[in-house]
Amino acid sequence: MKVFIVTAHPDTRSLTHSLLSETVKRFEKNGHEVKVSDLYQMKWKATVDEDDFKNHPKGERLEIAAASGAAYANNQLTDDVVAEQEKLKWCDLLILQFPLWWFSMPAILKGWVERVYSLGLAYGTFDRYGHGNFVGKKACLMVTLGGKEAQYSNNGVNGPIEDLLFPINRNILFYTGFSVLPSFLTFGANKFGEKEFNVTVERLNTWVDNIENEKPYNYRKQNDGQFDENLQLKPEFVNPAKSGFSQLIDFS
Amino acid sequence: MKVFIVTAHPDTRSLTHSLLSETVKRFEKNGHEVKVSDLYQMKWKATVDEDDFKNHPKGERLEIAAASGAAYANNQLTDDVVAEQEKLKWCDLLILQFPLWWFSMPAILKGWVERVYSLGLAYGTFDRYGHGNFVGKKACLMVTLGGKEAQYSNNGVNGPIEDLLFPINRNILFYTGFSVLPSFLTFGANKFGEKEFNVTVERLNTWVDNIENEKPYNYRKQNDGQFDENLQLKPEFVNPAKSGFSQLIDFS
Repeated sequence: MKVFIVTAHPDTRSLTHSLLSETVKRFEKNGHEVKVSDLYQMKWKATVDEDDFKNHPKGERLEIAAASGAAYANNQLTDDVVAEQEKLKWCDLLILQFPLWWFSMPAILKGWVERVYSLGLAYGTFDRYGHGNFVGKKACLMVTLGGKEAQYSNNGVNGPIEDLLFPINRNILFYTGFSVLPSFLTFGANKFGEKEFNVTVERLNTWVDNIENEKPYNYRKQNDGQFDENLQLKPEFVNPAKSGFSQLIDFS
Repeated sequence: MKVFIVTAHPDTRSLTHSLLSETVKRFEKNGHEVKVSDLYQMKWKATVDEDDFKNHPKGERLEIAAASGAAYANNQLTDDVVAEQEKLKWCDLLILQFPLWWFSMPAILKGWVERVYSLGLAYGTFDRYGHGNFVGKKACLMVTLGGKEAQYSNNGVNGPIEDLLFPINRNILFYTGFSVLPSFLTFGANKFGEKEFNVTVERLNTWVDNIENEKPYNYRKQNDGQFDENLQLKPEFVNPAKSGFSQLIDFS
């Protein structure tokens, strides 16, 4: 399997980086090929703007989606973006690895999505949510969290971690066709000693060893007949016992 | 009232900017004072790293929360961050205005949060969710969305907009003590003509005129006795009819 890991932490001695090394080691030991984009080390440009589109006349009206589509179609994207897109096309499994900052991904990684996810490559107007160019590929998140697991449980003060990550898992990864696997979560990252690290590496190795058998989330696809012409779930598919994001998962 | 608007769109002719101008005009007409941080125009540095903390020894282990706390306490933050913090302290109402990109705020605005929200200013370990330095201030979002409203409804294909914005409203704004007002949302932004714009400006003016009477979300506070020592909602406050984020809103 070809594995592409995008990682985002400024300190290479962080828990994020330590787990990255262990992850790469284990995938390679199991015979997989791994590429890593370490966004901070690459000094990744985090903000999308007109400089990203070489064919865009400076100072002209800028609509990001349209500009990215035109630049993608005409090979007018910048080299750093093209390199990432090539890795996306290459991989069988994409892993976004990051510390949860303010309950989402770090800005530098959000900027990777905004710049790399061109119209035409990552999505079309109708090819979304389970359709599109990345169908057949898998993706998942590896997240380190400072707080304890209880705070991210169903009744935890931060809200359920599944719901906090849902906009990334479903609306960024599944949106472009990826089958999304459950995340590898590491709680209590602020208080990690050697013991916690060793236990986590063991859990990580098991996760890597079994990842090809992991079952993806059963998100509803946009064009599978479950949504009406306004892209609302048809009444017969609405589960009255569910609300919020969970309505978009097919439990049948 | 002192109003601080942070805005994030690269094109000053965007709908985001047009609505910004109208918002500023209306607040000022009503006798309020307004300051604006236009992050793209300011060429805001979007990624937090060791350069943000002048007292941090280069190359030493970097933990963002601790480093920001030490730099804040010792006046060792960079000038651009200090200027934003002063505006935060100054304002009675904070507005984050942005286009919804990949179902969240643009990277450049996320990076504003990561750099400006220092430990000690924006939060403490226990002073969070309805407590902390910003109690007494209000905050809200102004968001433009390309898609139609139906796609962001309760059964819409993108998920409910209230849930997509919840991690920002509650876990970024309310987290630091702000009372959070309902968002000003503008759907269908990709297909805006003069007619849609005029209707929206009328709606915006009414919203600005009434904003001092808007009722904030009734989020549960961390230290109000509703959470146990693990920061999980006590059983007597759990509403079995609710799930996900809505459990964290007090409907009683």
